[in-house]
Amino acid sequence: MIRTMFSSVILFCALGIHAQDLKVIQLNVPDKTRGSAVMKALSDRQSAREYATKSLQPQDLSDLLWAANGVNRADGKRTAPSCRDFQDVEVYVILPEGAYLYDARAHALNPISAGDYRGAVAGSGQDFAKTAPLSIVLVADMTKYGNMSEGSKLMAAVDVGIVCQNINVACAGLGLATVPRASMNQAALKTALKLTDKHLLLMNNPIGYPKK
Amino acid sequence: MIRTMFSSVILFCALGIHAQDLKVIQLNVPDKTRGSAVMKALSDRQSAREYATKSLQPQDLSDLLWAANGVNRADGKRTAPSCRDFQDVEVYVILPEGAYLYDARAHALNPISAGDYRGAVAGSGQDFAKTAPLSIVLVADMTKYGNMSEGSKLMAAVDVGIVCQNINVACAGLGLATVPRASMNQAALKTALKLTDKHLLLMNNPIGYPKK
Repeated sequence: MIRTMFSSVILFCALGIHAQDLKVIQLNVPDKTRGSAVMKALSDRQSAREYATKSLQPQDLSDLLWAANGVNRADGKRTAPSCRDFQDVEVYVILPEGAYLYDARAHALNPISAGDYRGAVAGSGQDFAKTAPLSIVLVADMTKYGNMSEGSKLMAAVDVGIVCQNINVACAGLGLATVPRASMNQAALKTALKLTDKHLLLMNNPIGYPKK
Repeated sequence: MIRTMFSSVILFCALGIHAQDLKVIQLNVPDKTRGSAVMKALSDRQSAREYATKSLQPQDLSDLLWAANGVNRADGKRTAPSCRDFQDVEVYVILPEGAYLYDARAHALNPISAGDYRGAVAGSGQDFAKTAPLSIVLVADMTKYGNMSEGSKLMAAVDVGIVCQNINVACAGLGLATVPRASMNQAALKTALKLTDKHLLLMNNPIGYPKK
């Protein structure tokens, strides 16, 4: 009993969360027929810095994350192509209750840290980003490249841009509002997301329903 | 008469083309309602390295380029967001007869160099890329940043990834086949596209109809 409790404490400390806090969020099955026509979505694509405060509906959250970097084939390949199929882009989701990492294979959100890190996404002087009900943070895992050369970082940045545009286009096609940003509190987010010096934290997207 | 002829020679030499060669290609009005649903296009998104040899129909070429980085608002903003709205990504089009630069405002292709540069796009050992009826080459204009710092290059690479994914998603939604690539003969393309050391040549996409 004591040993079991001790193991649980170790586990929760390792994950940086507390027992009463976050659980895995299993996402809905994505609706792969949904959304406006591609050319209409691109016609509507624009950056929005105001959002309704309402949380995203479960289907919208599911479809958005699958669009961003979901598995779209039986062999595990993704909606987003990547350098040598490294699948190097990690999609973090910042909700008011905590930070999660998108698990594309399980189509689920795994808890990383409890707490509201929307302020860390906003950074200084851009409080609008705090008002979004969620943000996505895009990080390249440079261990996939085996080095931190400028060439590898540039390829990782291209891959991040690819996932970012999936988000922007999906938002336009699904009736959501977003803006891609490079500003953020890097230090606070690196701690919250438990990133290492082999992670490249490049972009974020506050996301919500359009403000009426 | 002689003076006029001489001026023409100077002009064509400056453009690197010959009198009998390339003209501006005015593209069709893009069809902003066309294509499969966004989620369907993302479901169909995959890399293809085989293409039918047939040239692209004018409407497909128009819609593809507008999707890539076209003007989608009256204020000149684009389908692709960019770092501080620098609009730093230049979209070059490699056709069998020559290389062109996409002019988003005019929705036209301006000639750069006569000749077939599809082999330069293919690079060594990847001859499949030569068989595509066209390729798009994505270049970041670093003069928009005013420096060549690693941070600026990373933002430019994100911007290139964003335009690249517009191409990949548009191809999936419009019935075209493509693959995003970083391999190419950089030296040959820099000459053909008349790039300077302030240009970052990052990605290319061979594009065609799917091979039956």
